[in-house]
Amino acid sequence: MKKTNADPVREVLERGVSEVIVKKELETLIRSKKKIKLYLGIDPTGKELHLGHTIALRKLRQFQNLGHEVYFLVGSFTALIGDTSDKNSMRPPMTPEQIEENFKTYKAQAAKILDFSKTTIVYNGEWLSKLKLADILNLANKFTVQQMIERDMYQERLKQGKPIGLHEFLYPLMQGYDSVELNVDLEVGGNDQLFNMLAGRTLQKVLNSRDKHVMTMQLIEGTDGRKMAKTYGNVININDEPADMYGKIMSMSDRLIGRYFELCTDVPMEEISAMEEEMMAGANPRDFKMRLGREIVAMYHGAKASGEAEERFITVFRKHDVPDDIEEKILSKGEWNIIDVLVETKLAPSKSEARRLVTQGGVKVDESGGGALKKVEEIEKMITIGDHLVLIQVGKRRFLSIRKK
Amino acid sequence: MKKTNADPVREVLERGVSEVIVKKELETLIRSKKKIKLYLGIDPTGKELHLGHTIALRKLRQFQNLGHEVYFLVGSFTALIGDTSDKNSMRPPMTPEQIEENFKTYKAQAAKILDFSKTTIVYNGEWLSKLKLADILNLANKFTVQQMIERDMYQERLKQGKPIGLHEFLYPLMQGYDSVELNVDLEVGGNDQLFNMLAGRTLQKVLNSRDKHVMTMQLIEGTDGRKMAKTYGNVININDEPADMYGKIMSMSDRLIGRYFELCTDVPMEEISAMEEEMMAGANPRDFKMRLGREIVAMYHGAKASGEAEERFITVFRKHDVPDDIEEKILSKGEWNIIDVLVETKLAPSKSEARRLVTQGGVKVDESGGGALKKVEEIEKMITIGDHLVLIQVGKRRFLSIRKK
Repeated sequence: MKKTNADPVREVLERGVSEVIVKKELETLIRSKKKIKLYLGIDPTGKELHLGHTIALRKLRQFQNLGHEVYFLVGSFTALIGDTSDKNSMRPPMTPEQIEENFKTYKAQAAKILDFSKTTIVYNGEWLSKLKLADILNLANKFTVQQMIERDMYQERLKQGKPIGLHEFLYPLMQGYDSVELNVDLEVGGNDQLFNMLAGRTLQKVLNSRDKHVMTMQLIEGTDGRKMAKTYGNVININDEPADMYGKIMSMSDRLIGRYFELCTDVPMEEISAMEEEMMAGANPRDFKMRLGREIVAMYHGAKASGEAEERFITVFRKHDVPDDIEEKILSKGEWNIIDVLVETKLAPSKSEARRLVTQGGVKVDESGGGALKKVEEIEKMITIGDHLVLIQVGKRRFLSIRKK
Repeated sequence: MKKTNADPVREVLERGVSEVIVKKELETLIRSKKKIKLYLGIDPTGKELHLGHTIALRKLRQFQNLGHEVYFLVGSFTALIGDTSDKNSMRPPMTPEQIEENFKTYKAQAAKILDFSKTTIVYNGEWLSKLKLADILNLANKFTVQQMIERDMYQERLKQGKPIGLHEFLYPLMQGYDSVELNVDLEVGGNDQLFNMLAGRTLQKVLNSRDKHVMTMQLIEGTDGRKMAKTYGNVININDEPADMYGKIMSMSDRLIGRYFELCTDVPMEEISAMEEEMMAGANPRDFKMRLGREIVAMYHGAKASGEAEERFITVFRKHDVPDDIEEKILSKGEWNIIDVLVETKLAPSKSEARRLVTQGGVKVDESGGGALKKVEEIEKMITIGDHLVLIQVGKRRFLSIRKK
């Protein structure tokens, strides 16, 4: 990680941060030069790490850089049940094998951010699986039903008449008990985890008489401006190919540039503010987006790959006079007939129209992920939807890029 | 227990019963001559058994008389937490020693009703203390938060803004899991236990694939017509002295006579109906109340003690022309000065007035529990509030009986 010019304590307390409870006390603790103990807990329910996941990891890394003691908690037990904190319905439970498998791939990716040689990994299955009914009652009696019901997402589900499993009310207790076992100064997490983290603050205070501070991180929007989520197809995975990653960043909404710089890069906050001012004054956002693309691709694939991705982008998009924020569609991986592609992506309203467009020579394709657009000569033409971004041009002005699902 | 003339299956299914789930199926099961397995669970939270407690015990005895297999479940674990089913606030937890002690005295009393030589006693601490978090989650996910909240007493507390401990939502699971462990055909309980018993029906069905039927018993009113509860001072304990027990029954509201006969005696339902008709036609309720007193005292103290209690009552109340439903007051056990008694029981509005009444010879007392009323000669006179009922007469018409607290 690069050094920033800002006060590193302010940087750690504020950058990308949504809320700190209790901020003044935590600041005093950090400035006292005491080594603090902190953790992030994750339920390894997916395989791919996207930029949204990196935000809390990057915060941990900042703490590591300042010499603090980082614990990484794998929710090996909680993932079996499934948190519903950020969902408005129940989630099917996972198997221990899925969890183990997921964490392996998760860790390989997270190692690009976190220094695992300085990180203690713990599994909450070690203590949660041993809790007995009497222990659980002793945790449960620290909370009221009213406190649980007040939670936004439960209110929502109550109002909509959607069932809330009784076991879901035990989830905050479980996650909260992790704090009791770890006995820390601070927990870091997404701001959708605030409720659970505060439950842990309560339990650690009552059972260990020690204050656990809570730091929630901002959530980042996906490339389309909605919440970053796999189901929306708007995520940037850190395992994405360099050209793909770069392309996604270039396709995203201009208004997100500043947030991405703050949350996903080490570019100093002062520079980010300056860029935002320049854009307000009329500078072309594309230039800043290109820098953002370079920065992020370099973080996960190195400077060389980053430079190549940018060059390829320039070749494909600029030289062919393609606008740099063209629409993107997602198709399932495999071999596609050009007619089906045109219909599926709605570039043509029907198969007969699609055939007409091709036979008239109005369709051009580049499947190389960065070569030249070539005219499609026959309606039998097959297109490979795979690792390369596919670019399609219909007529003079209509462009579309296609990614695999 | 005496035999009644009625169909014993109808008697067992209907007498004193509030609800049976599912009545038709249970009736078929019983009529099939199959030996059914049933249980009653109690949390031994008090020492004294009153008539209200006997209702379910008497039902178990009816089943025993028909040859069925009765289990008596001691809530050694659940009592540690405290059910709040019939309360509208949390209850302080008990210690294991209190529970053990209480059950000893409980059993000694219950043995007057239940045949413990044919009863299997089990303790839910044996299985509940072993349940782990994963087990509890597996029970909890069979219910929704909505199902819990719908319960009347929780609705009440939510409305009143009174806290509901999160652990209280686990109580129905615990009691319900008792059914899974016992794996029975039927559970009997008070109608305030319906919710918990149905939770057990759900769990036994899902986890054991066996139907547990549920029979709730009616609750009996105390001598003053309100719910029978120690705090109201309106309970008839089965350990009450014969004369005291008889006197309490005589003091109770006439409208309760039929219910007490149905719920607390073996007098056949046909006879009870006939008595009720006679009263409607103008017969003196006192005569039926006296029979009720005889029946109930005989059940718990034998025929001889019952006869004596009645004689004493007649001596005290009838010979002195005392009305048989005079008001009763409760004072703490010990020696009381007559002046304090008069003021405390509101027979006199002030100490000076009390002294005036005594010196004018207007106060008579019988502390023997059945002797003659004697004029109080001096204002220093001490009265013993203890095992005997104390009768006081002020002027010609004001009578009061006093019991120890």
